[in-house]
Amino acid sequence: MPSPPHNGGGDAHPPQRRRHLNLLILLLRLVTFGFSLAAAISIVTNSSPSWLRFQSFRFVFAANVIVAAYSLFEMCASVHEILKGATLFPEPIQLCFDFTHDQVFAYMVVAAGAAGAADARRLRAGGACAAEGGFCVLADVAVALGFAGFAFLALASLVSGFRLACYVTTGSGLHIW
Amino acid sequence: MPSPPHNGGGDAHPPQRRRHLNLLILLLRLVTFGFSLAAAISIVTNSSPSWLRFQSFRFVFAANVIVAAYSLFEMCASVHEILKGATLFPEPIQLCFDFTHDQVFAYMVVAAGAAGAADARRLRAGGACAAEGGFCVLADVAVALGFAGFAFLALASLVSGFRLACYVTTGSGLHIW
Repeated sequence: MPSPPHNGGGDAHPPQRRRHLNLLILLLRLVTFGFSLAAAISIVTNSSPSWLRFQSFRFVFAANVIVAAYSLFEMCASVHEILKGATLFPEPIQLCFDFTHDQVFAYMVVAAGAAGAADARRLRAGGACAAEGGFCVLADVAVALGFAGFAFLALASLVSGFRLACYVTTGSGLHIW
Repeated sequence: MPSPPHNGGGDAHPPQRRRHLNLLILLLRLVTFGFSLAAAISIVTNSSPSWLRFQSFRFVFAANVIVAAYSLFEMCASVHEILKGATLFPEPIQLCFDFTHDQVFAYMVVAAGAAGAADARRLRAGGACAAEGGFCVLADVAVALGFAGFAFLALASLVSGFRLACYVTTGSGLHIW
């Protein structure tokens, strides 16, 4: 059951501020989703030689698919909150869920990007790219897109962390900023 | 009987709470420092073949040296705050400095660890460890120590983020929790 909003009577602006915050989060989720999905697609279309042979590229693919799916879910949660004025889960659970997943997935996707970049660089240094230039370019593109997705996920994590901290310190995520 | 105010002079415990928070932060910094320094030393003593040949191990070394130096500085700042009862820099600057550096260095050190782990695994898969077993073991140890340091730095980042959010939401980092 969605939790009712903790609206107080004293401040006339909270619903509008909350709406702006939700729109910002929705935008960050949308951009993260776009970059992560593009990174996963770049990896999966890289078939000569198969990307499945490289553990780090499998990690990049898995991390970006997870982040894209999570961002899609969070976009639905944000749209629900914007339309209904209440979080999908009870508010404290939703805020904890958002922040912990943002943090864990941000660390995961930056680690995957670093591992993928190390392998992409090794392939290039080893001369493998002379024969398979397309593979190397797509691998670089996938790693770069993954890092771009990470940057927006890290920003989303800052916003969700701030929301959670507001809730914890004042007992309300709605009208403390 | 009216309940004591959440903020302000009515609460007798804030200095003690602040002290506990500072001791927790000091402990996290100390553990992070220990792990990062140990990771850097493990890498730098790995001389056959030279770790300098591997870009990812150079990254692991640099990231852990930076985190160890930063943790040492933050330990001094924490001790200063515990002894003097005031932050080293003006409080908003100190809180922003701590949180931004915690976040950036946590992402950096987890990325370095992932790149190092990818290379350590490749060396093992390539059969290089049969001849140079000691190198591979030390590389694995360094990567594992770096990840342990990351875990405590990520925890410190949560605490410093919470302190910053408290300051931003209530205008005081001292007695809001």
